Amino acid sequence: MKRIDGKKIALDILEEITAEVARLGEEKPCVTFVRVGDDPASISYLRNKGRAAAKTGIISEQKVFPEFISEAELLGEIESLNANPSVHGILVQAPLPDHMDERAVFNSVLPEKDVDGFHTVNIGKLCQEDSTGFAACTPAGIIELLKRSGITTEGRNVVVLGRSLIVGKPVSLLLLNKGSFGNATLTVCHSRTKDIGEVTRRADILIVAIGRGHFVTRDMLKPGGVVIDVGINRIRDLSRKSGYRLVGDVDFEEAVQVVSAITPVPGGVGPMTVAMLMQNTLKAFKNRTHGSTS
Amino acid sequence: MKRIDGKKIALDILEEITAEVARLGEEKPCVTFVRVGDDPASISYLRNKGRAAAKTGIISEQKVFPEFISEAELLGEIESLNANPSVHGILVQAPLPDHMDERAVFNSVLPEKDVDGFHTVNIGKLCQEDSTGFAACTPAGIIELLKRSGITTEGRNVVVLGRSLIVGKPVSLLLLNKGSFGNATLTVCHSRTKDIGEVTRRADILIVAIGRGHFVTRDMLKPGGVVIDVGINRIRDLSRKSGYRLVGDVDFEEAVQVVSAITPVPGGVGPMTVAMLMQNTLKAFKNRTHGSTS
Repeated sequence: MKRIDGKKIALDILEEITAEVARLGEEKPCVTFVRVGDDPASISYLRNKGRAAAKTGIISEQKVFPEFISEAELLGEIESLNANPSVHGILVQAPLPDHMDERAVFNSVLPEKDVDGFHTVNIGKLCQEDSTGFAACTPAGIIELLKRSGITTEGRNVVVLGRSLIVGKPVSLLLLNKGSFGNATLTVCHSRTKDIGEVTRRADILIVAIGRGHFVTRDMLKPGGVVIDVGINRIRDLSRKSGYRLVGDVDFEEAVQVVSAITPVPGGVGPMTVAMLMQNTLKAFKNRTHGSTS
Repeated sequence: MKRIDGKKIALDILEEITAEVARLGEEKPCVTFVRVGDDPASISYLRNKGRAAAKTGIISEQKVFPEFISEAELLGEIESLNANPSVHGILVQAPLPDHMDERAVFNSVLPEKDVDGFHTVNIGKLCQEDSTGFAACTPAGIIELLKRSGITTEGRNVVVLGRSLIVGKPVSLLLLNKGSFGNATLTVCHSRTKDIGEVTRRADILIVAIGRGHFVTRDMLKPGGVVIDVGINRIRDLSRKSGYRLVGDVDFEEAVQVVSAITPVPGGVGPMTVAMLMQNTLKAFKNRTHGSTS
């Protein structure tokens, strides 16, 4: 049984980015994080992203706005980041307050600076296999994790559990791309599927993003299969100082008894998402530099 | 065995559109077809589209350019159609000559006039379940055909054979939408799938868009299943005056012996594509009218 070490693979990628950033001229890539309000998870996610940036030599800055900022004001702030030539990437951290139209805010970021890959144009490009766009970080991270673990998807039964716009749909599209890490025979199942276990048991590779802790149990897995667990769920654990611990959508302890490879939570897909964000920022920078000098 | 009469259903839709167009004021919806060169299939497709428009009271006009027109010139022509307020919809008929970047040309049409649904923004909106966009006509026609035949996809095993950007991928995304005619347990298989028959035999509903005449044979079908055949292939038939006849991707004569419902070729999905184009044109007109009066 192989434990797919997302943390290690993400570190390898960050090192490659570090080397590339070091070779750049005086101007360095810069990503701006936009946070509205004080959601503890958002604070923690952005702290991780800022640390990863610092590690690679990518400049990051965080703009924090109060919970009660109006959508119009926020759009104005994003507009000035769009116009700022020294900002190459912009990430608006979800969730936004209820009084905002999240899609309108995400779409206000210039597609060329949308390193999160949430802009409608970048989703369309992902569907069109147009590599000039930015693929959303989590789906791109899943494919990269498979690639660097030597797990090809071509011609294999790949099952995606969950159909969210953030993970399920885009990773499904990527799995249908041409190439050894596409070309999958793809099945997407979800809460409306009659017998989820019947579907997941046929999965040579199972990608789980349903957002329910320990949803996938041993009997739902194909012996010898590969599991990529995208879920991050808090469950109470009074033995911990924090009072909780993080678990995936898959019951890891059960799964390790039957599968050939699995990603842990934490330390699987999570770090890959952050690494892909840095890769997208570097790409945004290179496209921009190229654009202004040509 | 039910023969799903796409021609009849498309006529019903065109009648509904006719009634709605009649109720409009003096200004009527107008769609412009752009054709480059004299491909016989393109001429025939546009003739059908023009006839359907005429039937509903939608104005259509055709702009024909010579094969050797440069991409820049064509983009200029599209630009002036974009700027023309009396043109509500624009359709650039594929295929374009080899010296053109098809995607760049399709993306030069304003998204609000892209009644074909090929613009990157409209593909992104389809993926995001954003109904302000235009869904590509063939995938939208397939879903409408199922709806009007009372064939729900919710919780059923729906298999899409083919992963093209024109049909396979967008219809797959629509099948994952919320609702009775979404919510499918979806499998996408294609030329790289190891055993296509093994997958298609599990299909409660099979949508075939692989572009190979009579590819799907009786032994690949689930008894009692539903088949939607998107293929249109010419095969030699010397008993016909034309010397050929059109067949689908499914061997119809074999399939009717086992399935519960099937679309014929011609007279299945084809007419639905044209009806959806008219529906998109009406939508473009209504959005535009609304936009200019509000």
